[in-house]
Amino acid sequence: MNKHVGILAIEVYTPKTYISQSKLESYNNVSVGRYTIGLGQDAIGLIGGDIEDINSIALTVVHSLLEKYSIDPMEIGRLEIGTETLIDKSKSTKTVLMSLFGNNKDIEGVTTINACYGGTAALFNTFAWVESDGWDGRYGIVVAADIAAYAKGPARPTSGAGAVAILVGRDAPLSFSDPREKVTHAAHVWDFFKPDHSVEYPKVDGGLSQVCYYQALEDCYIRFVEKIERSGIYDENESFDADSADYFVFHAPYNKLVQKSYGRLFFIDARRKYEKEKMKEDQHNIMTGEEENDEKSNNSNNLLQEWITMPIEETYNDKVLEKELKKISMISYESRLKDANAASKLIGNTYAASVFMGLASLMDKLGQDETNSIGKKVVVFSYGSGSMASMYRLHIRQCEQQRFTLEKMSKVIDFKSRLSSRIELEAKELDDVMDCREQMHNVGCPYQPIYDPSQRLFPGTYYLTGIDSNWTRRYSRLP
Amino acid sequence: MNKHVGILAIEVYTPKTYISQSKLESYNNVSVGRYTIGLGQDAIGLIGGDIEDINSIALTVVHSLLEKYSIDPMEIGRLEIGTETLIDKSKSTKTVLMSLFGNNKDIEGVTTINACYGGTAALFNTFAWVESDGWDGRYGIVVAADIAAYAKGPARPTSGAGAVAILVGRDAPLSFSDPREKVTHAAHVWDFFKPDHSVEYPKVDGGLSQVCYYQALEDCYIRFVEKIERSGIYDENESFDADSADYFVFHAPYNKLVQKSYGRLFFIDARRKYEKEKMKEDQHNIMTGEEENDEKSNNSNNLLQEWITMPIEETYNDKVLEKELKKISMISYESRLKDANAASKLIGNTYAASVFMGLASLMDKLGQDETNSIGKKVVVFSYGSGSMASMYRLHIRQCEQQRFTLEKMSKVIDFKSRLSSRIELEAKELDDVMDCREQMHNVGCPYQPIYDPSQRLFPGTYYLTGIDSNWTRRYSRLP
Repeated sequence: MNKHVGILAIEVYTPKTYISQSKLESYNNVSVGRYTIGLGQDAIGLIGGDIEDINSIALTVVHSLLEKYSIDPMEIGRLEIGTETLIDKSKSTKTVLMSLFGNNKDIEGVTTINACYGGTAALFNTFAWVESDGWDGRYGIVVAADIAAYAKGPARPTSGAGAVAILVGRDAPLSFSDPREKVTHAAHVWDFFKPDHSVEYPKVDGGLSQVCYYQALEDCYIRFVEKIERSGIYDENESFDADSADYFVFHAPYNKLVQKSYGRLFFIDARRKYEKEKMKEDQHNIMTGEEENDEKSNNSNNLLQEWITMPIEETYNDKVLEKELKKISMISYESRLKDANAASKLIGNTYAASVFMGLASLMDKLGQDETNSIGKKVVVFSYGSGSMASMYRLHIRQCEQQRFTLEKMSKVIDFKSRLSSRIELEAKELDDVMDCREQMHNVGCPYQPIYDPSQRLFPGTYYLTGIDSNWTRRYSRLP
Repeated sequence: MNKHVGILAIEVYTPKTYISQSKLESYNNVSVGRYTIGLGQDAIGLIGGDIEDINSIALTVVHSLLEKYSIDPMEIGRLEIGTETLIDKSKSTKTVLMSLFGNNKDIEGVTTINACYGGTAALFNTFAWVESDGWDGRYGIVVAADIAAYAKGPARPTSGAGAVAILVGRDAPLSFSDPREKVTHAAHVWDFFKPDHSVEYPKVDGGLSQVCYYQALEDCYIRFVEKIERSGIYDENESFDADSADYFVFHAPYNKLVQKSYGRLFFIDARRKYEKEKMKEDQHNIMTGEEENDEKSNNSNNLLQEWITMPIEETYNDKVLEKELKKISMISYESRLKDANAASKLIGNTYAASVFMGLASLMDKLGQDETNSIGKKVVVFSYGSGSMASMYRLHIRQCEQQRFTLEKMSKVIDFKSRLSSRIELEAKELDDVMDCREQMHNVGCPYQPIYDPSQRLFPGTYYLTGIDSNWTRRYSRLP
């Protein structure tokens, strides 16, 4: 019996204030288009100075999830957070969130970390919990939340902040198990990490991280496609390729990387096709005694011919190939991936939340026409440096329960009104906020925040009221 | 169909060097018995200076688990670490462990944190994964590992270090689902946490932490007993109490706390019995019209009479009650809990590993007589500050598979020869090692360790060879 384990509801949190990327270009004295075209980003969602931390944004998004979907705290049996914005090496943000659950103390789950992948690990854990024989009927909540902050330099324009809360249960409109299609790629690499406890910022090797992202995508995609092809959904003359999926959601450090990565799926498809045909021909040649004919097997991939047999490592930084792949994938990108990327173009990187911000952005759109969305499939690719990556497929389905629908999800997420009610700040505020957070990090305790919640935060947002001399953090919620 | 999900195999890692607690008493100029009787501890397992970190001890224990049980890396589908000894806020120790798995990249799971509870969260996640419909037949590994290090002061004698690796699968000799009995207590408290990034040490409120431990134990035990009584195993005239379990394993910050906490189970049993009888009498009085008779209902708990109706908060620091409970629980403690505590008395606190070190210590004993151990039940209580706690029961059973047995487990764990081959160091080495680690923390990178692996570590132990100027950590393994 399929339990249709999956996502019932989604709530997001994005900052009230933002910085325009084009204004940041002129403030930083870089060439026009460096961020808007080079990174493909339009704006940065700016965290509210020193009054927000990982606990406050997680409190905000979970309280709001419970409120907007009328969920009673007693209905929750599990709560897990994925984040890399740690302010404590021992006490988990999960325990801080317990202040939202009244007398319900029987809530499993803690905090899970692996760069931008923590939320995905938490989601998989919660899917398995809901699916396990011991499940007691209560819902699980997954929170993916981060403040993406970088030291001064070329990475700072990829800052951002946000949180996503996801309700998990059975009979879900966004199902994970119809059928279950999931693969994982784990590797030991040093592309982006946070070893320096004296700062909030990561150590980043941007070039290496892009290659690691490509490699993880490649490994996941090849095995994901094999899994789908083995599942018997397609007959032997057909095969799964990038055009077979209805929608994609990718982890989005910045838009341009997602576009380039999506292009690489078409490259992998071409290489797979070449290899398959070559194998067929080799078999034919062995049987008929004919000699090999390289020309013939390459016919179908003329555009990519010169890269098709090249060692894959040599293709990662090939700018000509990149342009070809952009051309090939552009139409597909527009219809399959653009909607998922719409939100992050305006918010920036949200690390662990990023891939779910993308999913929310897509659901915001698809939920506006629920009837036509039923039956559609969404392929999700999550990547976290270090590295961990997974690719899996969610199926939009007609539920028996009526309480959690795609339409409701879309109305709650509503990025349009959410993002249009933001306040634009001058570009220099990005540096000001980071300077203030650096000082806060150095002070330790006691600390009295200086930013004004009523100016910087939406109504209903939690904020840090102070850190006392015992390092205890206290929070309030704006009315 | 019961899948008998549970623990198939256990491997532990404890340091080669140790400090005697009685010698530490004289070195620290405290009264004789302060640590040996006051804490109930005999020795501290001392981490190998600056050549061991969370990655190295996790590498050591996982490599050793694979080796000693002849597990092929391809047999593993999941690996999750629970720890609070973070050296990186983003890159998980799990990814470092991928260097042990060769071409197998398809391994789920990351790093989970909540003080000493992280390993339990990882274990529950892995149980659910193995039990879920999507399970692909491969094993899961759970690693619980920590270096317990304290600033100079009264908490330092509760230092320790260790790691436990657990293999999880179906048809397990130590089953979690025969039947499944588990409760969780989550709360937002500031008893022990690590907010100060400039040091490796926690902030500890010892008194508060003991009360939080008691409260979590109380809440878990009451609901655990209710769950068992509701399950229909006992008829209505019987009830579950501390004497009904065959064995207990408690999270052990230091032995004395476990003894005191175990005594409190008898206090809770007495209060429960009193309340039950009171309820019966009240019902009887209502039906017969008789007046209340407090004397009568208290008869059965003469020894604890003065505390039985006291608000529970007032009993936490009552030394007279503590002594009474010690008397009442002593015999039961000796037969039910002492074996689990044997190892930690000689190793010290191992945070997330502690409760599993206790389980390993018990299995070491029970595996020596597997036949008589079949059918026995083990109640496990895990506590992590912040706080998270769970109580659950494991059932020792006869498996269909022959590969993973209790006897094998006992032979691998073998605390006797493991601990007797340790080398004792002078008491002052505890401070020396901590001073060295402080300096290492302050230096950041690059860093060249000064301790000698061949002197400080057992054969087969991983050690840090250095941190380069890009913060990259490199490891080697002693032959």
